[in-house]
Amino acid sequence: MTEKITSASNPRVKRLTALGKKAKLRREEGVFIIEGERLYTDTPREYLKEIYMTEEFLSEKLGGAAPEGCTVVTPEIMRKISDTDTPQGVLCVAKMPSYKREDLRGQTPLLLLLENIQDPGNLGTMMRTAEAAGVTGVLMSRDTVDLFNPKTVRATMSAIFRVPFLYTDDLIGEIRRLREEDGITVYAAHLRASRPYDEADCRKPCAFLIGNEGNGLTEEAADAASGRVHIPMQGSIESLNAAMAAGILLFEAARQRRKS
Amino acid sequence: MTEKITSASNPRVKRLTALGKKAKLRREEGVFIIEGERLYTDTPREYLKEIYMTEEFLSEKLGGAAPEGCTVVTPEIMRKISDTDTPQGVLCVAKMPSYKREDLRGQTPLLLLLENIQDPGNLGTMMRTAEAAGVTGVLMSRDTVDLFNPKTVRATMSAIFRVPFLYTDDLIGEIRRLREEDGITVYAAHLRASRPYDEADCRKPCAFLIGNEGNGLTEEAADAASGRVHIPMQGSIESLNAAMAAGILLFEAARQRRKS
Repeated sequence: MTEKITSASNPRVKRLTALGKKAKLRREEGVFIIEGERLYTDTPREYLKEIYMTEEFLSEKLGGAAPEGCTVVTPEIMRKISDTDTPQGVLCVAKMPSYKREDLRGQTPLLLLLENIQDPGNLGTMMRTAEAAGVTGVLMSRDTVDLFNPKTVRATMSAIFRVPFLYTDDLIGEIRRLREEDGITVYAAHLRASRPYDEADCRKPCAFLIGNEGNGLTEEAADAASGRVHIPMQGSIESLNAAMAAGILLFEAARQRRKS
Repeated sequence: MTEKITSASNPRVKRLTALGKKAKLRREEGVFIIEGERLYTDTPREYLKEIYMTEEFLSEKLGGAAPEGCTVVTPEIMRKISDTDTPQGVLCVAKMPSYKREDLRGQTPLLLLLENIQDPGNLGTMMRTAEAAGVTGVLMSRDTVDLFNPKTVRATMSAIFRVPFLYTDDLIGEIRRLREEDGITVYAAHLRASRPYDEADCRKPCAFLIGNEGNGLTEEAADAASGRVHIPMQGSIESLNAAMAAGILLFEAARQRRKS
């Protein structure tokens, strides 16, 4: 029989709400929250640990056939545990994907290296765009916003389950290792670089390094890279949105690789 | 002497709050709200009609020298009229820039045509990115979200004052006119197009047509274009974010123009 939660004071409600809000709790448990029909459908089944649905979602979307282990909750409880104003009626606890350093290389490495990205939507959009561009892995400094933040998860469009990623305490050291041990050319995206991004040879193993939204890259990180590139801009705009800059760089790499 | 508003029941407070929320009121008055130090600094002075500052902003940022016509408000009132959770202490009423059809052409036309874009942040990011890519004008279907929405305005990074734009009741008719009367090649961004975007010749006068975030372009709009292009994608991502797609297309145009 399908389990039901009807009381908002049920301790599981409190735990689910906390999982949506607290990165520390997510890390401790190695799980995170996914929400909405689309993400529920696209998430590989082996990652789903708990499934919560409203009666309405169950009957309208699944013809009343509750998936195994599904717990039915009231619309009030769904609103309480959801991160959105208008929840779609399905929310799951998912296992965090976990990767090793070598998983990020792929066949011809194309990496995205992120230093201190702070906007959850930007990070999610970068993951989504990275998958579409054929990125083999995303490496993030520890101070980058939590990838398992509900806003970020939604913005990834489930790329979070398909693009290998890793947080590192030593981004500078990793940049050096990528260059020296893996033979990967690391291009730092830098507003004051003299070399336009499309002059970088992206057919070879390479990586793009993107900095914080407000402050850009630290000099230390930019110096650790093989070289710097910039996206030539017109008008009076000082900089592009960080996710946009990443997308333009990565799709130039994809374009070059398609041509070669 | 500098005017002060200290009572939240002052009718001007109500009007300012309404201007932030109601597109209809903004249109009727031909004005909109800009917020924050950066936008205040970057907005051409001739567009500023009313300026509101907190004492704190005035003393910390301007050394106490109130600009002409500035009204001082309490932090409570600033929070009330602001669209953000943490207002920066400056908010202005600005005149809407106004353009004619011919203002969108520039020297070598590069237009961005938008059909029914709904996300305020996406539209703002598109304006910001468009300026950086050298877009000569942005043409939007009437059902596109209001460009003067406070969220959109913030995301434009003041490109709203520099990139000519126009809303049209007849996007299909305008697409035809751009092609037939102005000799502009219109490329519809379409997921099921066979031609990759980088095979479009963007050195000539051209335009990119982008559709709604969820549903893409209407068939009618896509059919009115000169042809369709797509951005080749890897992985399982169905589509890119609409602003991201626009940015990748426009920066490919910028790249081609730089090379020629």
